[in-house]
Amino acid sequence: MTRQELLTRLAQGNERRIVLLVLDGVGDLRTADQPRTALEEARTPNLDELAARSALGRLVPAGTGITPGSGPGHLALFGYDPGSPDADVGRGVLEALGLGLDVPPDTVVARGNFATVDGAGLLLDRRAGRIPTAEGRRICGLLARRIAADGGVLGDRVEVEVHAGEAYRFVLLFRARAGTAPLDSALADTDPQQLGVPPLPIEAIGGDAARETARRIAPVLEVLQRELRSEERANTFLLRGFSRLPSLSGIGELYRLRAAALAGYPLYRGVARACGMDVVDCGKSFGQVLDRLEECWADFDYFFLHVKGTDMAGEDGDLAAKVGVIEEVDALLPRLLDLGPDVLAITGDHSTPAPMKAHSWHPVPLLLSSEYCFVDDCARFTEAEAIRGAVGTIPSSELMGLLLANAGKLGKFGA
Amino acid sequence: MTRQELLTRLAQGNERRIVLLVLDGVGDLRTADQPRTALEEARTPNLDELAARSALGRLVPAGTGITPGSGPGHLALFGYDPGSPDADVGRGVLEALGLGLDVPPDTVVARGNFATVDGAGLLLDRRAGRIPTAEGRRICGLLARRIAADGGVLGDRVEVEVHAGEAYRFVLLFRARAGTAPLDSALADTDPQQLGVPPLPIEAIGGDAARETARRIAPVLEVLQRELRSEERANTFLLRGFSRLPSLSGIGELYRLRAAALAGYPLYRGVARACGMDVVDCGKSFGQVLDRLEECWADFDYFFLHVKGTDMAGEDGDLAAKVGVIEEVDALLPRLLDLGPDVLAITGDHSTPAPMKAHSWHPVPLLLSSEYCFVDDCARFTEAEAIRGAVGTIPSSELMGLLLANAGKLGKFGA
Repeated sequence: MTRQELLTRLAQGNERRIVLLVLDGVGDLRTADQPRTALEEARTPNLDELAARSALGRLVPAGTGITPGSGPGHLALFGYDPGSPDADVGRGVLEALGLGLDVPPDTVVARGNFATVDGAGLLLDRRAGRIPTAEGRRICGLLARRIAADGGVLGDRVEVEVHAGEAYRFVLLFRARAGTAPLDSALADTDPQQLGVPPLPIEAIGGDAARETARRIAPVLEVLQRELRSEERANTFLLRGFSRLPSLSGIGELYRLRAAALAGYPLYRGVARACGMDVVDCGKSFGQVLDRLEECWADFDYFFLHVKGTDMAGEDGDLAAKVGVIEEVDALLPRLLDLGPDVLAITGDHSTPAPMKAHSWHPVPLLLSSEYCFVDDCARFTEAEAIRGAVGTIPSSELMGLLLANAGKLGKFGA
Repeated sequence: MTRQELLTRLAQGNERRIVLLVLDGVGDLRTADQPRTALEEARTPNLDELAARSALGRLVPAGTGITPGSGPGHLALFGYDPGSPDADVGRGVLEALGLGLDVPPDTVVARGNFATVDGAGLLLDRRAGRIPTAEGRRICGLLARRIAADGGVLGDRVEVEVHAGEAYRFVLLFRARAGTAPLDSALADTDPQQLGVPPLPIEAIGGDAARETARRIAPVLEVLQRELRSEERANTFLLRGFSRLPSLSGIGELYRLRAAALAGYPLYRGVARACGMDVVDCGKSFGQVLDRLEECWADFDYFFLHVKGTDMAGEDGDLAAKVGVIEEVDALLPRLLDLGPDVLAITGDHSTPAPMKAHSWHPVPLLLSSEYCFVDDCARFTEAEAIRGAVGTIPSSELMGLLLANAGKLGKFGA
């Protein structure tokens, strides 16, 4: 019996409310040049006061030394094993979710780059000179009209959609026409990752179903590529990350939760939806998230709140900006506490240390507040304090069970 | 190779003695209303002195957030994976063990409630008005006589035994007559868990063997139920927790130990016996346990000592009583130390925090004393000190290997 199966067996619904507040990438580093982390640097009277009557600990998102993307980072926080194939959210799907697109489970998604080839069809630029977003949109418009001209169906009965992203990026969605065999996503990238060679033809990396899908999709790509011939820079495209939305059991059925996601950015809404949460529309600031939280407080008993600013500041290497986001969250924290959540966890999906300007593998500090959390000796919500917290250092994927336990939502195991 | 298999391969017997002292449910909480745990509150000069020259740590009984019953809690301490189906001790078996009954491996046990139905056979009271123990015994006597009248065999060649428990509780033991197919325990409860409906018929939740068992047992239940017709309150019964004793490899053969269990309560003796320990009869107080320990010290090299009072006080929410039990153990500790155990571990099978009046999921503090335990900086045996102990926070099921290692009972792994 897996841990998730055991939790499902023990889950017993009740009215108590759990809030998981994810400060994306909040974990940071002490280095020679940056002696204090953003959490240490920030003035956080409300978090300090809460930490003093809470349990701290640390979450390891995807295993020691493993740097997770946003998909695995969040799936782990929602109780899934981010290493299991079931929970593998491919890059194509993530890109589509990030654009706010709905990705039905039977849809194969690829992430595209517009690119430049010479007269002989050899790659000159894998990003088409980083064309601006408006240019990418214009070209996607061309492709969309071509698709519409065939009634939305190209190749061997494949429904196709194209959506522009930032700059030279776009996504393609493929779905088998009703009554035909479903498409498989075990397809290799067509991006050869080098210049002076032609784009790769589409090829299966899986079995028969994938080979059949490659055969059906190949003519789609030919038609679309022909449409770009007269473009100056974006005269071809490269596809990567063919994938489908993982078919996960929703956390509603797994844990008897009525779960809501309040996230300002589409990627996180998409991952939450893939986990069976209801997505509550809200703005990007923590204040806007709280506005909606207050409105829907009666309707759910598990709330995933997402704050993006910490990660963005970390990616920019901007410690002061990260400190600012944390202080903004701290200032608004009383509004969250006034709702009286029975269990409140504050943590991140991974660390994004400012000195690294990137996601990292470092454990993420966790603050756990509930009537029965065990009040430990940690005085502040920081990385270093969290090392000696009562929760210890545990995999992120174990957090869900801990939240359920603290909310009295798990029965006893064995007699 | 599982961890248990590796330990078995490395196990090398020797004369050194291991003592595992289980203070049942000793772990407790700091909350807003209870700022100090029982271990923090207790005056424990002997434990303090021992802690100062020991290694501390924390044990997680059955996984983060999982609250274990006594069965899984102890099996984990004895080195078994409490989540494995092999180690699943069902409620029927536990109830029987708790009554001090011998449960042979081929026996299916169910725990029973006497209950009240109306003239139409619909449940009025699932506990028969909580009849007193004497009344339950009288009724079990009726059933036992009915069984004896048929030579102990009812239904389709099923040997049946009934034993009274506390108040309205009893257990039924079923065993296939010699020469007939063994019975299966994958049977659903007959307790519908609600009033105004009839008791459920016995039904299989497993495959063919369970269906065959249900068919053979159904007439047994009819005969016994008919016997109760004229009772005023206990005019029917409900069965729950059909189970068999798990067939575990004994810790003698697994680890080359001569293991003894000294426990005053039958439930713990039963679990220990299921793990292949010799049960040494003893009283319920720690002093009585020590009396017997001193007598049998020469005969074994692994001793499981059980103190129940900490758990009982925790279940009662009585912090002062829990403190009292801990202080009593502390006062008697020199007698244990005088025997000179080579390895001594003091811990619990789970936490039973007084504020929760129930078992909980919180890690349990561990004190490990041996010549080579690593003397860490922890000054007292408390939950908070144990967070920073040298042993760290490990699954309870890993303790056995640590005890063997400290006793020199494990060879090197690999060359």
